[in-house]
Amino acid sequence: MYTVDELRAIIKEELDKKEYIQEPYSLFEPILYILEDGGKRLRPLLTLMAYNLYREDIEKVLKSAIGIEIFHNYTLLHDDVMDDAELRRGRPTVHKKWNSNVAILSGDAAAITAYQCIEHCEDKYLRRAIDFFNQVAMDVCRGQQYDMLFETRNDVSEEEYIKMIYLKTSVLLAGSLRHGALLADAPEHEYNALYEFGGYLGLAFQLQDDLLDSYGDQRLGKAIGGDILEGKKTYLMITAMSHADEATREMLRTAYRDPALSDAEKIGKVKSIYDRLDVPRLTEQQIQLRFERALSILDTLSVAPSRTQRMRDYAMSLMDRKN
Amino acid sequence: MYTVDELRAIIKEELDKKEYIQEPYSLFEPILYILEDGGKRLRPLLTLMAYNLYREDIEKVLKSAIGIEIFHNYTLLHDDVMDDAELRRGRPTVHKKWNSNVAILSGDAAAITAYQCIEHCEDKYLRRAIDFFNQVAMDVCRGQQYDMLFETRNDVSEEEYIKMIYLKTSVLLAGSLRHGALLADAPEHEYNALYEFGGYLGLAFQLQDDLLDSYGDQRLGKAIGGDILEGKKTYLMITAMSHADEATREMLRTAYRDPALSDAEKIGKVKSIYDRLDVPRLTEQQIQLRFERALSILDTLSVAPSRTQRMRDYAMSLMDRKN
Repeated sequence: MYTVDELRAIIKEELDKKEYIQEPYSLFEPILYILEDGGKRLRPLLTLMAYNLYREDIEKVLKSAIGIEIFHNYTLLHDDVMDDAELRRGRPTVHKKWNSNVAILSGDAAAITAYQCIEHCEDKYLRRAIDFFNQVAMDVCRGQQYDMLFETRNDVSEEEYIKMIYLKTSVLLAGSLRHGALLADAPEHEYNALYEFGGYLGLAFQLQDDLLDSYGDQRLGKAIGGDILEGKKTYLMITAMSHADEATREMLRTAYRDPALSDAEKIGKVKSIYDRLDVPRLTEQQIQLRFERALSILDTLSVAPSRTQRMRDYAMSLMDRKN
Repeated sequence: MYTVDELRAIIKEELDKKEYIQEPYSLFEPILYILEDGGKRLRPLLTLMAYNLYREDIEKVLKSAIGIEIFHNYTLLHDDVMDDAELRRGRPTVHKKWNSNVAILSGDAAAITAYQCIEHCEDKYLRRAIDFFNQVAMDVCRGQQYDMLFETRNDVSEEEYIKMIYLKTSVLLAGSLRHGALLADAPEHEYNALYEFGGYLGLAFQLQDDLLDSYGDQRLGKAIGGDILEGKKTYLMITAMSHADEATREMLRTAYRDPALSDAEKIGKVKSIYDRLDVPRLTEQQIQLRFERALSILDTLSVAPSRTQRMRDYAMSLMDRKN
């Protein structure tokens, strides 16, 4: 069985081959640019790890794992245009470094490249691989659409928010795992179980991301309170809104754009409401619930406990939790 | 064998089912909007006609023919954003009616919908269907990229221009035909022949489009000379540039933005240069060459001449030529 570091090195080596590049180079240059800035390579890693639960010949799933990473980066290219984001992992976004047209068209080329990579599998898996990938890709789009729709609404429920982040981020993690297990010839109920594991893990991860943005430490490398200052709808904000009285709701809605307050005062004001409404503990509960469900699913797999242990360790490390 | 009108009615009926719609509706509304404005339905028609050369049970290829139409409309959604186009077939473009984010994301959803539709085929065709579609989709992207790159260049050769329009428009016509023939179980050399037929037909059609924009009649419903007024690089302009002396080239380069000239004078000036350099006849020659090559390929197919005749008639009608 491979270690996570070994798998990450294998992913890097495969990406560095840049085998998918065609003419004109300028169409692929922005794809190389966004791919080279790294990130955790979470999705192809999950694909390889799921495959490696069952089989050792991971080169068989490598091309399609790369496809999943390229797909993820395609969504980043387009999302950054839609959000008009300036920076991505500390570097100018593609539409800022070049322009939106470049980000749109190179994004499109990345999506097609992803499809080309995904189909690298034996014929007997092809229909399911494509079916599953189509569904995941569509769910990611649906999640992004809900996210944009929610921006202009003040009555988003916790349930709606959870559904949105599930579609926008968890489904791709879930699909990465299922794809790896499918190509490893895992039985249907096991690749579906891994899909479920990924869904819960993704939700736990995303909710924790929300929590850490307001209450986290420096490990994230993010400014604490960024979400509050942007007036972003996070799980914390939505939970607070649903528990607050009307006067408090009005404060939550307007604090971030109150010209009388400094940034630190805005953050302090919102967090004191969160604290009063017990939001951090309620959020932590939701994280814990989903993380435990995710881990319990690993116990249902037919593989040796030593093999699932590595997946468990990796999930722990993602959540920054000690075993 | 079905008539073209029957096939068009079948396509309309299938599109009207809107079977691919998921929640949220707002993600799919722009796709319905761009699909409902009609157009010739050229691509799904070619798919059905290619299938119908060999087989009568066209319902088997209908879903994927619809997928090709949806794919085409996805490229229109994104191209209209990139070109900042105001109108499409007389109606506001999606990014004008809504905004660019809507056009980008609904375009993405349309592309994935296209993939979902394309895979409606028997397992034995699936790999080739997906392989071919991926290649076509990538070529369309590459063509759009060349088109954008050429905008800022003054030295585009005829060969480069032909390659660009081949990728941007002909390949999808070619792929539509190949897809139909593949699913009809046509032998490999025949579906490849139909791909070639579509490539030449597409080039003839696109070059004629260039010619008619400056020399056409009212059948197109386009203002005569629109390309000249936009300073667009067309086959006519590129041919003229390659045959002109430096002083004439400078006139061609600048006429469209000369504030001293009225629109009619700009058009008159450029057309008089075209005429002097024999550009209309040279262009007509290139059209004829490709159109004849296309038709001659139809003769190589193993199907009864009465069946290829309908394809020939349709090609003639597309080119507005009498048999």
